[in-house]
Amino acid sequence: MLSEFDLIKQYFVQNYASDPRFALGIGDDCALINPSKGMQLAISTDMLVSGRHFFPDADPVGLGHKCLAVNLSDLAAMGAKPLAFTLALSLPEANPTWLAGFSQGLLALAQEHNCRLIGGDTTKGPLNICITIFGELPPETALRRDAAQVGDDIWISGSLGDARLALACYWQEVTLSAEQHELAAKRMHQPTPRIKLGIALRGVAHAALDISDGLIGDLGHILECSKVGASILVDSLPAGLVLRQQVQEKRREYTLAGGDDYELCFTAPLCQREAVLAAALASDTSVTRIGTIEAEAGLRLLDINNKPINMQLRSFDHFTTP
Amino acid sequence: MLSEFDLIKQYFVQNYASDPRFALGIGDDCALINPSKGMQLAISTDMLVSGRHFFPDADPVGLGHKCLAVNLSDLAAMGAKPLAFTLALSLPEANPTWLAGFSQGLLALAQEHNCRLIGGDTTKGPLNICITIFGELPPETALRRDAAQVGDDIWISGSLGDARLALACYWQEVTLSAEQHELAAKRMHQPTPRIKLGIALRGVAHAALDISDGLIGDLGHILECSKVGASILVDSLPAGLVLRQQVQEKRREYTLAGGDDYELCFTAPLCQREAVLAAALASDTSVTRIGTIEAEAGLRLLDINNKPINMQLRSFDHFTTP
Repeated sequence: MLSEFDLIKQYFVQNYASDPRFALGIGDDCALINPSKGMQLAISTDMLVSGRHFFPDADPVGLGHKCLAVNLSDLAAMGAKPLAFTLALSLPEANPTWLAGFSQGLLALAQEHNCRLIGGDTTKGPLNICITIFGELPPETALRRDAAQVGDDIWISGSLGDARLALACYWQEVTLSAEQHELAAKRMHQPTPRIKLGIALRGVAHAALDISDGLIGDLGHILECSKVGASILVDSLPAGLVLRQQVQEKRREYTLAGGDDYELCFTAPLCQREAVLAAALASDTSVTRIGTIEAEAGLRLLDINNKPINMQLRSFDHFTTP
Repeated sequence: MLSEFDLIKQYFVQNYASDPRFALGIGDDCALINPSKGMQLAISTDMLVSGRHFFPDADPVGLGHKCLAVNLSDLAAMGAKPLAFTLALSLPEANPTWLAGFSQGLLALAQEHNCRLIGGDTTKGPLNICITIFGELPPETALRRDAAQVGDDIWISGSLGDARLALACYWQEVTLSAEQHELAAKRMHQPTPRIKLGIALRGVAHAALDISDGLIGDLGHILECSKVGASILVDSLPAGLVLRQQVQEKRREYTLAGGDDYELCFTAPLCQREAVLAAALASDTSVTRIGTIEAEAGLRLLDINNKPINMQLRSFDHFTTP
């Protein structure tokens, strides 16, 4: 059987060319980073549990991608540039097939973003994957949750709801063609972190976050932290390619409270509309204006005629959602 | 039931006085650190699994202490000064008694080392605790594993084996008095990270690491990384207060391959003997000289008469140890 050290060496240690960002990588008590002069360090951590965040039999390549993608998405939501990450793994067994696939998916995405695996821990136990990620950004440029201002436009990157639709199909709540399911499932298993857009929005957007638990709940964090309210035009929300073929009720439900979208939700003043569109173009990411930040507390859902929609929806919560 | 956000707010968010080291703490997509000018950042991550690293019914206060202590111990082993940490928690349920105890033990030790909890993640799942810790140190001062030199003395901080003895008592392999067991169990449940000693050894020691899987295995990493060998005087190993009352065979076994010691093992040239003792004095930590780094590969175990001891021992490994 593979020992812990063999396992790390075989699957996770990469040979990098000398990189001045790092003084020491995997294999000592700590990794050593040389922070760039005058830059702030953005740090985020996410823990993914088998049976909760992914199916126990999930394809390991896709899982490796997704675990890093959700962390990169947190950097994107701050406008930070990826630098490095650590990986802690609890595994029921050292399964070579699983490890080869997982490390392949993980390290391919890491390489794409020049984000280096600098350390970690492996242990035996129920499958659990915890990544802590580090990025850099100039001081005072971070896209924080508490920076939305009354009058700001609210924007969304890409599209919403296809990941939730794929889940509904797995749960047999909806029926999709094989082709539709494949397309939606890709959104669920292989989210695209919006790193380029996040960096392009520095100095343009006010507040931002990434949508992981559903738009309503996540936008709610911006409203709460910024002490503002908002109206959104529900039927102008950009539904995913597959979801837009579904009935209005499903479209509304899954765009508003789907979860697992990993799109950016951000606010920007009206005077920055052109700059937002330029940032979208520069990062090759579509953006859609979905509403307005308002002084009155609370979130108002409006239909295409600006009439209030009454919907009972809630955001996903790990301890109160069954 | 407590929501994820209530849980974090209630148990883990502390009110700190304004601290220039941090631009943003818990509650956004990322935390933001302002690295000190010209300093390197040391990073380490450890994952602790219920039933593997601790008993499922472990006292939560002690567990909170231990989870952070093992991470601080990694910083100590590099000579880094603690700065901050993130906490990812997978919990079977949001149990207020457990959370209150755990956060109390964790944050008390954090405060003692001026090490701030800056972010994290909570999710439902089998109990799993993953901490990633950050420390600072001047460039070129890190105590690395690959820096031992032929002729160096080998040193150990504190004492070894009492944690392993406590475990043996839990497993009913040995019998201890209630008082003895309490003393030994404290070494198992509440290790003391040797932060001050680590910092004091900058520029004095060559190589260092912390002993978590047993002296033989961990010293083996120094030998392998530094491409050297060593001899150690087994009967001069500093046994724990309780272990030293046991028979020689147990003393040898548990000091050499006990595990869970969280003492520093370091090497330093002969000309630094006085400086090592001064560092020990300054950090109020006892140190013991246990052997010598040699050119010949391998680890030689010698008795009090410098005669080889033949023992079958091995280090703990998560995937090959039953």
